[in-house]
Order: sequence, then structure tokens, then C-alpha cells
Amino acid sequence: RAEAERDLGQFYPFLAGLPGADIKISVYDAEHAAAECELAFLAVPAGTALRMAPDLLGRGVKVIDFSADFRLEDPDVYQQWYGEPHTAREALASAVYGLPELNAAAIRNANLVANPGCYPTASILGLAAALKHDLVDPDTIIIDAASGASGAGRKPVIPNLYCEISDNFRAYGAPRHRHTPEIEQELGKLAGSPLTLTFTPHILPMKRGILATIYARLRDPQMPVSQIRDIFAAFWAGEKWLRLLPEGALPETAHVRGSMYCDIAVLKDDRTGRLIILCAIDNLCRGAAGQALANANLMSGLAVDCGMENLCPLP
Amino acid sequence: RAEAERDLGQFYPFLAGLPGADIKISVYDAEHAAAECELAFLAVPAGTALRMAPDLLGRGVKVIDFSADFRLEDPDVYQQWYGEPHTAREALASAVYGLPELNAAAIRNANLVANPGCYPTASILGLAAALKHDLVDPDTIIIDAASGASGAGRKPVIPNLYCEISDNFRAYGAPRHRHTPEIEQELGKLAGSPLTLTFTPHILPMKRGILATIYARLRDPQMPVSQIRDIFAAFWAGEKWLRLLPEGALPETAHVRGSMYCDIAVLKDDRTGRLIILCAIDNLCRGAAGQALANANLMSGLAVDCGMENLCPLP
Amino acid sequence: RAEAERDLGQFYPFLAGLPGADIKISVYDAEHAAAECELAFLAVPAGTALRMAPDLLGRGVKVIDFSADFRLEDPDVYQQWYGEPHTAREALASAVYGLPELNAAAIRNANLVANPGCYPTASILGLAAALKHDLVDPDTIIIDAASGASGAGRKPVIPNLYCEISDNFRAYGAPRHRHTPEIEQELGKLAGSPLTLTFTPHILPMKRGILATIYARLRDPQMPVSQIRDIFAAFWAGEKWLRLLPEGALPETAHVRGSMYCDIAVLKDDRTGRLIILCAIDNLCRGAAGQALANANLMSGLAVDCGMENLCPLP
Amino acid sequence: RAEAERDLGQFYPFLAGLPGADIKISVYDAEHAAAECELAFLAVPAGTALRMAPDLLGRGVKVIDFSADFRLEDPDVYQQWYGEPHTAREALASAVYGLPELNAAAIRNANLVANPGCYPTASILGLAAALKHDLVDPDTIIIDAASGASGAGRKPVIPNLYCEISDNFRAYGAPRHRHTPEIEQELGKLAGSPLTLTFTPHILPMKRGILATIYARLRDPQMPVSQIRDIFAAFWAGEKWLRLLPEGALPETAHVRGSMYCDIAVLKDDRTGRLIILCAIDNLCRGAAGQALANANLMSGLAVDCGMENLCPLP
Repeated sequence: RAEAERDLGQFYPFLAGLPGADIKISVYDAEHAAAECELAFLAVPAGTALRMAPDLLGRGVKVIDFSADFRLEDPDVYQQWYGEPHTAREALASAVYGLPELNAAAIRNANLVANPGCYPTASILGLAAALKHDLVDPDTIIIDAASGASGAGRKPVIPNLYCEISDNFRAYGAPRHRHTPEIEQELGKLAGSPLTLTFTPHILPMKRGILATIYARLRDPQMPVSQIRDIFAAFWAGEKWLRLLPEGALPETAHVRGSMYCDIAVLKDDRTGRLIILCAIDNLCRGAAGQALANANLMSGLAVDCGMENLCPLP
Repeated sequence: RAEAERDLGQFYPFLAGLPGADIKISVYDAEHAAAECELAFLAVPAGTALRMAPDLLGRGVKVIDFSADFRLEDPDVYQQWYGEPHTAREALASAVYGLPELNAAAIRNANLVANPGCYPTASILGLAAALKHDLVDPDTIIIDAASGASGAGRKPVIPNLYCEISDNFRAYGAPRHRHTPEIEQELGKLAGSPLTLTFTPHILPMKRGILATIYARLRDPQMPVSQIRDIFAAFWAGEKWLRLLPEGALPETAHVRGSMYCDIAVLKDDRTGRLIILCAIDNLCRGAAGQALANANLMSGLAVDCGMENLCPLP
Repeated sequence: RAEAERDLGQFYPFLAGLPGADIKISVYDAEHAAAECELAFLAVPAGTALRMAPDLLGRGVKVIDFSADFRLEDPDVYQQWYGEPHTAREALASAVYGLPELNAAAIRNANLVANPGCYPTASILGLAAALKHDLVDPDTIIIDAASGASGAGRKPVIPNLYCEISDNFRAYGAPRHRHTPEIEQELGKLAGSPLTLTFTPHILPMKRGILATIYARLRDPQMPVSQIRDIFAAFWAGEKWLRLLPEGALPETAHVRGSMYCDIAVLKDDRTGRLIILCAIDNLCRGAAGQALANANLMSGLAVDCGMENLCPLP
Repeated sequence: RAEAERDLGQFYPFLAGLPGADIKISVYDAEHAAAECELAFLAVPAGTALRMAPDLLGRGVKVIDFSADFRLEDPDVYQQWYGEPHTAREALASAVYGLPELNAAAIRNANLVANPGCYPTASILGLAAALKHDLVDPDTIIIDAASGASGAGRKPVIPNLYCEISDNFRAYGAPRHRHTPEIEQELGKLAGSPLTLTFTPHILPMKRGILATIYARLRDPQMPVSQIRDIFAAFWAGEKWLRLLPEGALPETAHVRGSMYCDIAVLKDDRTGRLIILCAIDNLCRGAAGQALANANLMSGLAVDCGMENLCPLP
């Protein structure tokens, strides 16, 4: 609201001169939105989408929501982690979890898509092949992840200041970060039964990028790592945004910066029988805006990468 | 050698004007060193200390070695991880592992001290109380750690360049980083029997600081976290460099920057029965030079913090 | 040579999966290059292009050279600043200075284009309008500029290490940086007579981006800043990569990161009668690779922005 | 006020365990302050010290003020740059500008000291010798300076966020930053008559440190740089915090980080007859807290470096 009537190119000067920079920021009005839009992206605080999404859906507008409001299928789990009752259960029942590689068919038919969190995107993509093929014991999963500072949003509070984040590294939200149930829900589906895991996020002294370092015990400690890599390769065959790195290479957040790529490495710790999966994404593009665009493409009958065919990392 | 005859203050201009800045860098000569020094610090590449330390010891000079050459008690383990046979077994048999809080008595009587690695310092201090009191299952230990770029030294190679490290985060050395056996050896002593663990280091886009995030299953998943914290507090009572953080606070590398402090937080993941220990140190001071000075103090009959009484973090 | 036979996508893993990632790096061979290429980009050390360019031109291959070898029209000035005689004077006589906005017509007809340095690009674009319109006294020009670390290239030497550049700011090369004569030459042409100026570069703790802060006395200290801005606006009318910022806005390197944009602000210091011009570019794209591509487009009869129509800054 | 009753060590956890960490933060009360303190440091917003300082002085408490309220001797200049009339003219008349090297005698006798701004500290120390010895034309002075983000304070506003400052470089406040009249006032005293200059500050993607790059025309363009350096060396002889760098060396902010040092290099641009002075300080220590402590030492009859004898840069 504070920016209403300004151009997008004034709000974000780096956009000046580009197509769309002259779009005017306006105060949200449901009726007006419904008249103008076939599809709306909601980037609003937790709880607000509970009110806005059903209204838009009722007016025939498809919705992609960036918040957690429609990510957790069980409204009781929502209340447990977010402290408020879920007040849009009908919409919730129709929502699809928007991970394009895993749910493309459902997303194509959805009117409401819950855009995944950034940490869940990296965690789920990292573990999907291993759980689908029952390679690891779900009770032993630990996800240790770190994110660039943009993951915390643009709120002007002390912990987001330059002097607090620069030249510093720390965990936060442990041991009960709100992305935990979202990760458990989607991984549970892949595993075929509910699971509980440990997830610890950290904040990095850099702007963009997430690296998840994931640990789990192999069902078969003797399985050679080459066989595991083959299973991963087959699982992700044909997915252009998934890059299973060659043996010996490890993901770097700089290599996916500003792109839809998800870089994955599979290691085996022979001494302990653990699988170590490393997974890097850009938290803003793959973990938020770009992923929302991919979902919008699917919901609109377009190719998933429409408009992003040449999206290249910029380290 | 390349810097011989220069003053320390010329080599490191920030030292100019300070006491000691006029010390001349000279080419090493054992006889000369023995005539001038009671104690020598060896900061030489792996393998070199195998030759230098016995020579100095034979001349009556006490030695603190920064390399891994005298950290592993079993010469076979050394050969297994470093690829070369250990050629100074007599010296090795007399070496003491230089973690002041755990080995002060032995260090005081030692002529040869192996200065611990930076990751092992954080890992061992983090886990010591839990293993000594048998709080966790040693088979489930995972150490996920991240270090500032100074941990890699000052070698001019591509991976150490600004443009490779800045705005980037990645793991390295996994799953067999050379600090692993050193951590296992010291933790095994605390646990009372050998153990095997998973250790994954990462490189941070910042200069200094290590944060270790450590996971292990509690023997008793019902043990309240307050009781665990009490055990840690009792274990470290009287150690001024160990700061067990108040409940709710998490360590930040910036808070220990340039100091001997080791900041520790103890969390319990009630949902999975895991203990999560977070441990921050400065890799250069606590993890290297400062720790060496503390060891030198002990070996010289001084208070462990002599000359470092007012060493304060500089975030 | 060290990377010969590797794919581009192996050398730069962030390119894997993108068009061109399978291009093989090969050892340079003039005959082979002439058979395969209509145009060659030379990114070789100073002095090497003196040998390579004439050879390629003789074989009918157009050349864009990234070094300073063909930027200085006067071979004596070259020898004075680079310490070696210029050994390709014939080629030099035919070379065009590749600043697309200023020299498009000549670039279109050129067989040899000297791709401008990054600092000169920012400095010349910043001052062009003021000198062409005789707004300032050329004897009073001071260019104070700062560059991201990528400006120094990828050579593994101590000053390029992360720990030397991070959390640090310093000048270098002053008071005789080699980009000085190149800036003076091109600005002298715009001013209509030779000029001498002061140029001081600094190195920033960040990867990419140049900001030039330029000072000069106004010929007419009473000229209102609005009039000066109008002159700049008219001078750059129709140039899509030049963004004259709205009054009150100042350039930020993040706003041009990864793009061809050159953001310019014009200020007047009423108290001293000085004009202050601020000019931001991305040193790698606008200051090197992107600019070379723009030149190649012109030399090939294509639109200057062919393939870069949607190149957008990525802060 | 928001932090009242908390310990200093809780507010700044890095201080925990150090002497003074148990000091309680309390709400300011003049009567209580006067009963407890001989000297007060005021670190309050501009305008607030106008009220507080006279009150404390009237109660016999010496005052060191960090704001600009008592830095400008002429109340009309204050009103012109700060937009409000100066309401503490009597106190102002007694205030001393707290640059220890230049005003030690006056500071020793002062009850009210205006602690200099960080940019003015670097600018004045850089130019003092040149102006005192009439080496340069005051009308040609340009100060181009850059500061770490801590210079902007700890206010939670958008421009201070990590994602706005990281990986970015920009000027701000130009062409009328409020530190300008303070620099002009003190330099005018050294020059012997009023002067007007151009000052442009920039914000760096790092926490601490200021580098000022200062330009001015030499009165005698033929004067050899060695003679200029000798004049600087004589001017600063005996000042332990002033380090005139050896020929060929340039100041780096990392070399003064966390210290009272002011590193100065003197260059001559032979081609233009300009003097270039580079001057680096730590904006928080030399430019604020440490300098205030030095002033407090002088006002209390102690050695200027009392308690800071061993303060060493920590890069």
C-alpha cells in the first residue's frame, strides 16, 4: 500500500527500461483483480492468504500462494505449527503442492497451488529419489541447511541488518522451524508412510542460495554409490532443471544463482553406511518466484519453462 | 624463505608500530633455533614436522606443532589418512593433544604438543560433556560444520580466490575429510571406546569463524533438556573460555571472532529424540594461534591465559 | 592449454545443461581457427595479441581483442605505459575503439576492434556528454573509481585471495594506472583536444561492478543542474543501455549487475561549482564480455543487442 | 529504554564473561547520572544532546558528545545544515573539537568535547599536514570517501538491510553531506582561512572501516614527493596512532580494523601536479568509541592511550 501508484521500475530501479517496468503498483481490490486477471500470485503474510484465496477462487481466478497457508494438507498440523486454526478448509482440500517435477499433472488441473518453501524445495528434491526407492531409513534423516539472507524477506528488523549478517554464521529456528512439517508431509508421501526428521536451518553471509546437506542411513550399507547414483539418474531422467553432478563434483550455490537449477550430489560414507545428499538451489528463483512461474505455466497449459528457456545462472 | 630478512611489520603491515613488528623473518636453522628458543611453534606443511620436531626435541627445545603430524596416536591411522608412513614414532609416543580444557595436566608436562585442528577443536569441545556422561549413542554422531575461508590457509590457488568463495557456499572434502580420525580419536577417549562418525565441512563466504552443528541420538529420549544443560554446565564449570549460552540463545561466529571463546548451545529435538549441539569458535585464534599460545603458557608453567586475559571478541 | 579437451560445462559447472556447454576447449591453432571462425575474440595477456591479431586478420578473420594492445592509437604512448615497443603498427592503424554508443558506425566497418577496458567504459560514458558540450574544464577532471574483484582476473596470486579482499577496501595502481591513457585518448577526442586527468582505482569487497565518481569544474558555475541533465538526456537519447537516473536517484552497482546497462547520475555541487557524475556498470558484462558481443553484432551486420534483448540485471 | 534492566552482556552476547558485561542498562536520569558519573558519553540522536549536555554540565559532569550538536562553532552554520536553531549556545561556546592529535591541550581543559564524525576524522588527519604547511590550493580539495555499513548505525530501515548493502556500492548524501561543514571548519583553521570543498561519501559492502581518497593541486607542482613525505613525517612525529606508510604502500581498511591507527599514504600525480592523500581508519574505534575514550583520558588527566596501549588491529 505504501508504494501504491509508483511504477515497478521506480520501486526496483534495476528494472527500469525493461518490459513491465511501467506497471503501476495498486492497492489490492478483489473485484478489480478478478476483472483483470486469470491467475493471481499471493505474496502476503501467513494467515492473510486464508482470506484472500477463497475469495479469488470464488471469482474464477486461479491462485498461486507463496505462504504456508495451503501447504499443509492437515489443518490440525497447520494449527499446531502456526498457532491459528485453519479457516479455509474447503480451499485447502483443493490445493496442490507446487513442486513441478513431482506434481506436474496435478498442478496442470489445479486452481489453487501452494508454492513450496525454499528449504522444502531443496530438501524434497534432494531426498525424493532415495525415499521413492526405499534406499534409506526414514527415521535417520537429518537435514542441515543454510540459506542466503534474502530468505528472511525484506523486513527492516535488527536481525536482517547488514552488520548482523555480514561476516557471521548462525543457526536459527532450531529445533522446530516451521518448514519441518511441510518437508515431512511431502517426503512421507514419497516414502509411502509418515516420517519424522530433524531440520536445522542456518543463515549465510550472502544474498541468495540454499545448500541442504542431508544425512540418512542406507538400508543396505553395502550398496555401491555408483548404483545409488544410477537410481538417482533414472529417477530424474528428462528433468532439465535437475542436474545430478558428475562423480567428484559437489554443488555450489553460486552455480545455480538466479536459475531454476537444482544441483544434486550423492555421496556415500562407507565408514558409517550413511548416504549424504547435497542439494543446491537459488532460494529466490527455484525456491520462490521462478517456481511460481513454472506452476503458472502448467496451470495455463503452457510448457513448464515457458519464458524461462534460456534462464542461466549468474554467479 | 621468500620473506627472509623482512620485518614482521613489513610482511603484515597491520602490525607496524606494535611490539614485535621489528622482528626479522629468518630462514630456519635448527642449531640457531635451539640456541635462541626454549619453545618452537611449527607451522609447516604436513610431513615436514616429522623431520623437524625430533631434531628440535633432541636439542632440548619444546615443540608445539600446528600440523596433523603428531595428532594421531596410532601411526597406522596416520598412514591410512595421510598416505605416508609415520617416520617419527618415538616423538609421536610422547606427544600430547593440546586441548587445554581437557588435557591441561599432560600439556604442562609435555615437550611435544600437537596443536588441534580447528574443526576438531569445535567438535570435541561440543561433544565432550555428552560423551563423558554417556548421554548419546556414539554410533549416531553427525558433525556438520562450516568454516571461514582462512581455514584453508594463504595458498594462492584458484579455490581460495575471492571470486570463488564470495557469495557462495559449498561442502568440500566429504565424506572423508582428514580431520575425521582426529575427532574420532579424542571423542573415543571421552566415550571410553572407539567410535566412528560422519563429518562434513563447508566453506563460508567470510574470513574467520567455525560453527559446528552436531547431531546425536539421546540414550534417554525422555531426558529433559534442562537436565542436559545442567550436565554441560557442571562439566565446564570454571572454564572461562567455555560459554554455555543461556536457553534460547544460539552461537554466532561473530560473537567469538578473534577470541578464545567457545560458545555452546544445547538443544533437544523432542520429536526425534536427538540432541543438537551448536558450537562456535574463531578458527584462527581458538582453533590455531591462540590455542597454541595457551599450550605454550601451560608448557612454560604460566597461567593458561597469560597475555590473553583481556582478549575480547571483535565482531 | 591446461584445460584442453574439457567441455566448457566442465570448466564452468554453472553452464552445464545450457546451450554451448558441450563446446570443447582446444589449444589455439591459427589455421584451424581461420577455417572455423569468421570472428575471433582474443582474451590473452597484454602483448600476446600483438602477435595473434595480425595473423588472424591476414587469414580473413575479424578480431575483437580484450587486451590493451590495440586501444592506444599512438604506439609511443603504448610503449610508454606498457614498457614494450608496439610491434603491430599496421593492425593498430586499422583498429577501432569498441564503445558501441560512441563508435557504432566505425565498428560496423572494422576488422579489428579493441574492446575497451572496464574503467574506461564507465569513465568515458560518464563524461562523454559533458566534454562534447564543453560543460567542464578538462584540466580539472578527477575520476575516482572502484571495481569488484573480478576486474583483476582469475590469476591465483595472494592479492586476489578471499582473505585479502573480503572486508577490506584499498586503492591500487595510483597514481599511474594503465587505464589512464586510454581514458584520456577517448575523452580528448570528445573534448576536441588532448587532456590530462587523474584516475584512481580501488578494489571493492564484492565480485562484480564498477562505480566511477567523476569530478570536474563547470565552465559556467551558474548553469542549473536541470539544464545539464537535459543536455545529458539529449546526448543519450535513443540509447537503451544508457539510463540517466531520475533526479534524486544515485547509481548502485547492484542495479546493473550482469547487464549492459550504464546508470548515470548528474549532480552539481553548488558551493564549489563542480559537476559530479556518478556512473555504474557491470565490469564483466558491459565492461568486457557483453560489450564484446555487442561489437561482434555490429561487425556482423546484426542489431547491436542481438541475443541480449532481454538481458536483465540480477542484483 | 527498550533494553532497560538487561545486562550489557545480554544485549551484546559477545561481551558475556568479560569485565563489565554485568553492567545493567538503565533509563537515563540526569540526577542519578550526576551522582554516579564524573564524565558522560552522549550517544543520542542529533538535537537531543542540545538539551542533555547543558544539564549535565550544570551538574558538574564532563560531557563527550558523539553527535554533531557541538561540532560546528557557528550556530548559524548548524542551523543551515541541520535545519534547527542551535539552542545551547553557551555550552557550544565552551565545546572543544575532540581530535586528540590536533587539540590535546584544549581537550585536557575541556568540560564539553564534541567527538568528531568518522569521515571528518579521516579527512582532517589526512589533510592537516598539507594545509598547515600550505602545500596545496584549498580551493581544489576533493574528498572521495567510503565507509563500512556500521557508519550508518543500527537503525532497522530498508537501506541498512543486508540485501541492500551486500554486493553493492553506491554514493549517498552527495553533494551536501552533513559532515562537509565540520571538515571545512577544522581544515580552515589549519589553512588559516575559511575554505570550501567537495565531499562525497560512499557505502561499502563491509562492516567497518573508512578510506578517504583526497585530491588537491600542489602549490608547487615541482615539489618532489619525497619532500612532501618528509613534511608529513615531521608534522606527525611522535604520534603513535599515525602511521605514515613507507613509499609504495597504500592504506587498507583491514589494516586498521578495530584499532586507533590512522594509516596515511602520500602520492603525487606528476602528470597533473595533484597531491593524492589516502587515509584509512576504523570508523567505529578511531572514528567513534576509541576516540571518545582517548578524549576521556585527556579530560581525566590520564595518558591519551590509557587502557588502549595494546590495542591491535584485527583484520
